[in-house]
Amino acid sequence: MVVGRMTGDPVGMHRVLEPMGALPQAAERLDTDPVVRDDEVRVRVRRLNLDAASFRQLEHKHGGDGAAVRAEVLGIIRRRGKMHNPVTGSGGMLVGTVEEVGESSPLGLAVGDVVATLVSLTLTPLVIEDDLADWDGLSEQVPAAGYAILFGRSIAAKLPEDLPMPLALAVMDVCGAPALTERHVGRYADPVVVVIGGAGKSGSLCLAAARRAGARRTLAVVPHQAEADLLEPTGLADQVLVCDARDPVALRDTVTAAGGPADLTVVCVDVPGCEGGAILATATGGTVLFFSMATSFTAAALGAEGLAADVTMVVGNGYVPGHADLALELVRSDAGVRGLFERRL
Amino acid sequence: MVVGRMTGDPVGMHRVLEPMGALPQAAERLDTDPVVRDDEVRVRVRRLNLDAASFRQLEHKHGGDGAAVRAEVLGIIRRRGKMHNPVTGSGGMLVGTVEEVGESSPLGLAVGDVVATLVSLTLTPLVIEDDLADWDGLSEQVPAAGYAILFGRSIAAKLPEDLPMPLALAVMDVCGAPALTERHVGRYADPVVVVIGGAGKSGSLCLAAARRAGARRTLAVVPHQAEADLLEPTGLADQVLVCDARDPVALRDTVTAAGGPADLTVVCVDVPGCEGGAILATATGGTVLFFSMATSFTAAALGAEGLAADVTMVVGNGYVPGHADLALELVRSDAGVRGLFERRL
Repeated sequence: MVVGRMTGDPVGMHRVLEPMGALPQAAERLDTDPVVRDDEVRVRVRRLNLDAASFRQLEHKHGGDGAAVRAEVLGIIRRRGKMHNPVTGSGGMLVGTVEEVGESSPLGLAVGDVVATLVSLTLTPLVIEDDLADWDGLSEQVPAAGYAILFGRSIAAKLPEDLPMPLALAVMDVCGAPALTERHVGRYADPVVVVIGGAGKSGSLCLAAARRAGARRTLAVVPHQAEADLLEPTGLADQVLVCDARDPVALRDTVTAAGGPADLTVVCVDVPGCEGGAILATATGGTVLFFSMATSFTAAALGAEGLAADVTMVVGNGYVPGHADLALELVRSDAGVRGLFERRL
Repeated sequence: MVVGRMTGDPVGMHRVLEPMGALPQAAERLDTDPVVRDDEVRVRVRRLNLDAASFRQLEHKHGGDGAAVRAEVLGIIRRRGKMHNPVTGSGGMLVGTVEEVGESSPLGLAVGDVVATLVSLTLTPLVIEDDLADWDGLSEQVPAAGYAILFGRSIAAKLPEDLPMPLALAVMDVCGAPALTERHVGRYADPVVVVIGGAGKSGSLCLAAARRAGARRTLAVVPHQAEADLLEPTGLADQVLVCDARDPVALRDTVTAAGGPADLTVVCVDVPGCEGGAILATATGGTVLFFSMATSFTAAALGAEGLAADVTMVVGNGYVPGHADLALELVRSDAGVRGLFERRL
């Protein structure tokens, strides 16, 4: 590697304007200079996909006034040099066309590639050049013209040509969960896998990934019969269990009666209070993957200790090499997963 | 196993009075009936060790009035049937003598054993019979007479006869960290191990455990030169690094210059904001063990994704089979660890 004057820090520290020393995600403001460093890539932006929590907050704040929402999004991007909602702390992703590739970029992209960013907008330098004139401010999907910068360690995936863009984006948005599920399934021989929230987007992908990776038995936990009625016909789970995952003993007993406890439990529902049940539903020596952003670190740590549960608890990392390809392949090959996704677009 | 009328639920659900369905730790009130179920153990209490955060809160609230602190502790225990500080959410541990053992108790205890509980007081049914008359309310160490109930899945360890009780209790209080460190070191060949907070109680044990488990190189990160001066003479770390672990790039660069990145990074300091640095200091394919209760689940999850870091992040589970024996053995065999502990008693 040639380290020259214009090579960037791989995680983008050279783009942080304030506070100095913060990582780009934690920073208040980023440098949006369009000149790429040797290891950077500039993308011509076509569309932003705002994080759902961020859009809901803005929509609610402005009482559904789309023009006001648009003005605030523009203001955030101008002020911070990135789309980082200061209230929700979340961003989203973007779609665009590669415009320039630094000579030592490790991302494997070429000019003209149509890509989606798989790192958050909260750390992506972004400039909007059309005032978002084609957006009505009424949906998370934001047509946009401008540019964004990717760092050496950013992640971008080429958009597949055989899937509709909204479907591909929805799949890429949750693609870390099935990849990490596949990896952990592979650490057990013929495991029983429980997916809490199995009828959701990440949950259905995790069920498909678990079966493909060699799970002996897959169990899906859903909160209502209506979700069970959606999931059962897909055949993604060997058994669908209707149970409130916040009730630890009910979850333990339900899973045990259905062939558990689990070797691997995957938590894919964004409701608080599922830690105890997930731990109790998991066998000694088993693993719990927490993908819910509502997970409490202390509830998990103290809960397992209090239950004398020798289970490995893993923080769901959204980045696993090859995650987008795996998830897209699952959607292509499994009509059940695809059907569940298309219902939710 | 004989399942009879009087066999308890192994995690103690039968002792929950309100709210129904909660785990004992989450419960408002526990049943303190002294009659043991088949799988329970009753312990005659000698001493409580209040959690440090809980004691500090009570001390501060009452302005150092020991009698008022004592009255409030008694009130909490009477009202809740357990020592569960409603403000801090924490409890502590207790020392006592086994008084009665249910015929199917799996804990391996015998009447007369002197034990410490390794599950929290926040889930242990407890009755005080002496009004804590021998306690001045001015320290975390509470002489007490009364009884406590252990469940089938509770954890209690016999107190060693060759170590002073305060030392043994301090070691048991943090014994989960070295045990989990040992396990994860064993998953790598000749790993580099970084312990953030290496001069502390759990940190020094983790350093000793890592070396014994086969670490090729151990690096300790401490915040000040004074801590480095304490740690260096013990020889517990191959190198001691003075660095603010909240500065991600500084930590990455410091660790890298000292032989990193780490295959295993162990976070043992209770300060917020160490997630990014721990992730950046860890090699692709490496593991971060978070033992700090100040860890933010979302900071870890989104941080790793934003850094495109393929690291496994593990929630530090305080329970690992054999954890107390391992930690006590490390203190017995390593004068450096013992010295650091004795300085902090």
